[in-house]
Amino acid sequence: MTPNPLAGREPLLVLLVEDNEDHAELIKRSLAENRVEKRIIWVDNGEKALHYLLHQGEYHDPSTNQRPNLILLDLRLPRIDGLEVLRTIKGNPELQQIPVVILTSSAAETDIAKAYEFHANSYIVKPVDFLKFTRLMDDLGFYWLGWNQQPNCLNDTR
Amino acid sequence: MTPNPLAGREPLLVLLVEDNEDHAELIKRSLAENRVEKRIIWVDNGEKALHYLLHQGEYHDPSTNQRPNLILLDLRLPRIDGLEVLRTIKGNPELQQIPVVILTSSAAETDIAKAYEFHANSYIVKPVDFLKFTRLMDDLGFYWLGWNQQPNCLNDTR
Repeated sequence: MTPNPLAGREPLLVLLVEDNEDHAELIKRSLAENRVEKRIIWVDNGEKALHYLLHQGEYHDPSTNQRPNLILLDLRLPRIDGLEVLRTIKGNPELQQIPVVILTSSAAETDIAKAYEFHANSYIVKPVDFLKFTRLMDDLGFYWLGWNQQPNCLNDTR
Repeated sequence: MTPNPLAGREPLLVLLVEDNEDHAELIKRSLAENRVEKRIIWVDNGEKALHYLLHQGEYHDPSTNQRPNLILLDLRLPRIDGLEVLRTIKGNPELQQIPVVILTSSAAETDIAKAYEFHANSYIVKPVDFLKFTRLMDDLGFYWLGWNQQPNCLNDTR
C-alpha cells in the first residue's frame, strides 16, 4: 500500500452537470466508491450549472453553494450547451481556476478542438463498457481530487 | 482485469521539461514502467522546451520533432522559467491544445494561481516520498495518455 495523499483533507465538492439520469447515477455511484472523501452536487442542465456557479436563480444564496473543486461537464445539455457553460466558466476570473473535465459521449473532433480552445482542463469520452466506466471514474476522481493541486481560493466557502 | 483503453494506439510522446537530473531519471523510469506505450523526450531548460516546440535552434528540423501528446513542465527552470514556457504554449494557437501538467516542488499559492491563470491543464506537487512519486507517475501517465482524449492534430508528425 502506498500512502494516501489525501489524509487529513476536508471533503471536496464535485459539480456534476449531466442530463442523462442513468449516466448521472453511474457517475455518482462510481465516484462515491473511490478513495477520496467528497460531496457530489448534480444538476441536469447548463443553465442550472451556471446559476449554481454564479449564485443566480434557485441558487441565489451564496452560503448554500460552496465553490466546487472539480466540474464534470457533459456537452449535449438542455437550455445552455456544455461548450457555452465551459466558455463562461473559463472566461470568468472568479471561476476559471476550477478544473473542468468534459465527460461526454461525443468523440467528434470539432467538440474536442472547441473544448481545448475554450480551455477545458481535460476531455474524456465516456466508455460504453460498464467496467471501463467505473474504472475511469475511480482514476479520474483520484487524479483530480487526490493528486491535482487546488488553488486555495477553491477551499473558500462561498 | 478491466480492458486497457489504449489497445491499438500508436506510441505517444511526452515532452519532459525538468532541470533536476535525478527527478528526470525518476520520472522517466516511472513513466516508462506504466501501462501506456510511449516515448519520452527530456529537455533540461525552458529555452530548449520552446525551441523543441517551435522548431528553433538545435530543433529547427520539424521532421525530427513530433508534437508531444503531453508536456510535463517544471517551474524553476534555467534560461526561461516554467511559467513563461506555459504562457507561450497556451498563447500559441498551434500548441495550446497540448495538455500541460505542471510538475514541481513548489506548493506556493502564487505559483499555483499563476499556473491556472495561464491555463495549465493540471498542477501537481512532486511528492517527497519515493513510493508516492512512482504511484503518482503511474496514475498521471495513465490518466493523460490513456483516458484523456487528444485532439487529432496532436497525432500529426511535424
